[in-house]
Amino acid sequence: MDIVYMDNNATTKVDPVVLDAMLPYFTELYGNASSMHSFGGAVGRDIAAAREKLAGLINAEPGEIIFTSCGTESDSTAIYAAIRSNPDKRHIITSRVEHPAVKNLYEHLAKTGYRVTWVPVDKEGVLDLDFLRHHLTDNTALVSIMWANNESGVIFPIAKIADMAREKGIVFHSDAVQAVGKVPVDVRQTGLDMLSLSGHKIHGPKGVGALYVRKGAKFSPFMIGGHQERGRRGGTENSASIVGLGRASELAKGHLREMDTRVRALRDRLEQGLLQAIPNALLNGEKDLRLPNTTNISFEYVEGEAILLMMDQFGICASSGSACTSGSLEPSHVLRAMGVPFTAAHGSIRFSLSVYNTEAEVDFVVEKLPPIIERLRQMSPFWKGAGCRLQ
Amino acid sequence: MDIVYMDNNATTKVDPVVLDAMLPYFTELYGNASSMHSFGGAVGRDIAAAREKLAGLINAEPGEIIFTSCGTESDSTAIYAAIRSNPDKRHIITSRVEHPAVKNLYEHLAKTGYRVTWVPVDKEGVLDLDFLRHHLTDNTALVSIMWANNESGVIFPIAKIADMAREKGIVFHSDAVQAVGKVPVDVRQTGLDMLSLSGHKIHGPKGVGALYVRKGAKFSPFMIGGHQERGRRGGTENSASIVGLGRASELAKGHLREMDTRVRALRDRLEQGLLQAIPNALLNGEKDLRLPNTTNISFEYVEGEAILLMMDQFGICASSGSACTSGSLEPSHVLRAMGVPFTAAHGSIRFSLSVYNTEAEVDFVVEKLPPIIERLRQMSPFWKGAGCRLQ
Repeated sequence: MDIVYMDNNATTKVDPVVLDAMLPYFTELYGNASSMHSFGGAVGRDIAAAREKLAGLINAEPGEIIFTSCGTESDSTAIYAAIRSNPDKRHIITSRVEHPAVKNLYEHLAKTGYRVTWVPVDKEGVLDLDFLRHHLTDNTALVSIMWANNESGVIFPIAKIADMAREKGIVFHSDAVQAVGKVPVDVRQTGLDMLSLSGHKIHGPKGVGALYVRKGAKFSPFMIGGHQERGRRGGTENSASIVGLGRASELAKGHLREMDTRVRALRDRLEQGLLQAIPNALLNGEKDLRLPNTTNISFEYVEGEAILLMMDQFGICASSGSACTSGSLEPSHVLRAMGVPFTAAHGSIRFSLSVYNTEAEVDFVVEKLPPIIERLRQMSPFWKGAGCRLQ
Repeated sequence: MDIVYMDNNATTKVDPVVLDAMLPYFTELYGNASSMHSFGGAVGRDIAAAREKLAGLINAEPGEIIFTSCGTESDSTAIYAAIRSNPDKRHIITSRVEHPAVKNLYEHLAKTGYRVTWVPVDKEGVLDLDFLRHHLTDNTALVSIMWANNESGVIFPIAKIADMAREKGIVFHSDAVQAVGKVPVDVRQTGLDMLSLSGHKIHGPKGVGALYVRKGAKFSPFMIGGHQERGRRGGTENSASIVGLGRASELAKGHLREMDTRVRALRDRLEQGLLQAIPNALLNGEKDLRLPNTTNISFEYVEGEAILLMMDQFGICASSGSACTSGSLEPSHVLRAMGVPFTAAHGSIRFSLSVYNTEAEVDFVVEKLPPIIERLRQMSPFWKGAGCRLQ
């Protein structure tokens, strides 16, 4: 069965061009980039070229890029670097809607003596900037706020937060895993200190990510080991995946316009089609300040998991809450932070598109989903009550 | 130019069979293993199968395996898990000849208040087991001793150390990155608590490793994030590389006998050929207690880097000291710990073979290296003096 893949915020297909770029590094150019022999040394040069390509995507200098194994490692690296560089400051700030890579680490730090301020969002998922401003103190070691939310797609005002943090001399890190490749991300213009990104969200391979660290920013390594990445991240360089991430970065840069036009139009067509065809369907997230590829819709009185299972029979792939919290019966912490009612949060579905999606796929989903929702509601004891109430 | 690759302790060629196993996960089965849809869920089952294969290589249970991004991450995970599980104990033990992934982290911990005992080795690289035994205390949180040394190839008495640690209730971790796939490694029989291994040392891909954690052992995660690896390691599962590591584990298990016979014979032929043909050449490392694929020879009065460069012209790949410390002008810390004299340590070359090496390749190196050493010695001011002294 052909699949209709609309789960690109969870992970993406490796672009065949990226795979082609990676292939030589497995069985031919397999040397260790740190070796003295030219067989390995050549790989070192290819890694340098990949670093330049990635830097070009976010307007960084190559020396500001540290390759890591994933977005989670980039986040851990950034957060530990900030607090180890400011050992006397015991207050850290983040939002209520961060990815588990930041959220769970902050919760861990809260248990080890850090005071954590969780910045709220409003019902449209927009960050409370005044709250954030009022909680910046001389004791604040770090502000970590994601560039765009993985579930709602809402984009946060990173440049403004960077200004606020810089004024107070506070380190500012942003998890931009969902933003990079979907909207322009310019570290120079924004002025933040550290930024996380991941290969497999931009049609690169899984198992590789990067951390931007502003030149001059204090840093201490998370993964302590060999001299790789100029002593900033130990471990043999993952040459195939790094070269793949470099190639994916070039592609992503070239796709930004299409993301903002064709993919955005596809997303809008999907969203409007579903909202028009299905009663008691609510959009989650501020309509305009969103990633162009993401829509998150709550279908009241049904279970997201049941919707996913029935869509699965048609090969339609999407998510209920974040893929990273699947397996849990709790409603998404992001939707709860937005105050989405329990009955709606449980029935929320996130569709996340890519440049590979087509209008035909969108129309297929708009055709197949309404009868699925209707059938599930027929089976729901809550729906009849809602029907009565709505009459 | 064809290369003669004898640097398999630095990294190995991905076996084409391994690459074939990985390929579908880039552009076809690219779903997120944690997704609710069957497209992603199928990948989750393939990861489970890879976990079984890897467990089979070291006689662990699948649930005792945590996939990581590399040996360095496995080491960091183990070391932090041990000290976080024993927060009141402030003494940790390791050897003087560990890989930088352990050595540098211990040096970092020494700066943060840990007392570190560095167990010495003798001039043949054999661990001083009595020294280790005498330094185990009630305040010891962790003993971390590598299974086999990456530079000398010397194998350490892991089962004995595990017994000693267990008697005192001390956590024992072993970096077995160099041992796995070269000699039998049986975690059940040995009785250690944690063991690190790496994919790219056993003809799997770079960017993936694993940590064995004995069932029932205390653990706390190093990479805090999502629920992956049952909450023990956050980050989207690197499905292609994990499947590759599973396939490589099967191959490695099948190659163990060949390692002990054909590869060992090749290594001996190389070693004897070089020692016979080249005067003032000294074997580093206990002759019998070594990995079957490794030989480390010091060529007195010449520079290892110069030897590597001249071998490079014939396509011969080997290492001077550890690849992970290349770029440094310091002699290897392993050879210094063994008391190898300065003039010999600087001229040491490690050849590390694999099942892909042939007798013709060995004979090629035995033919090409003696004139290289002779030529370099002609240029060396130290050699004439040595020549005089030796007469």
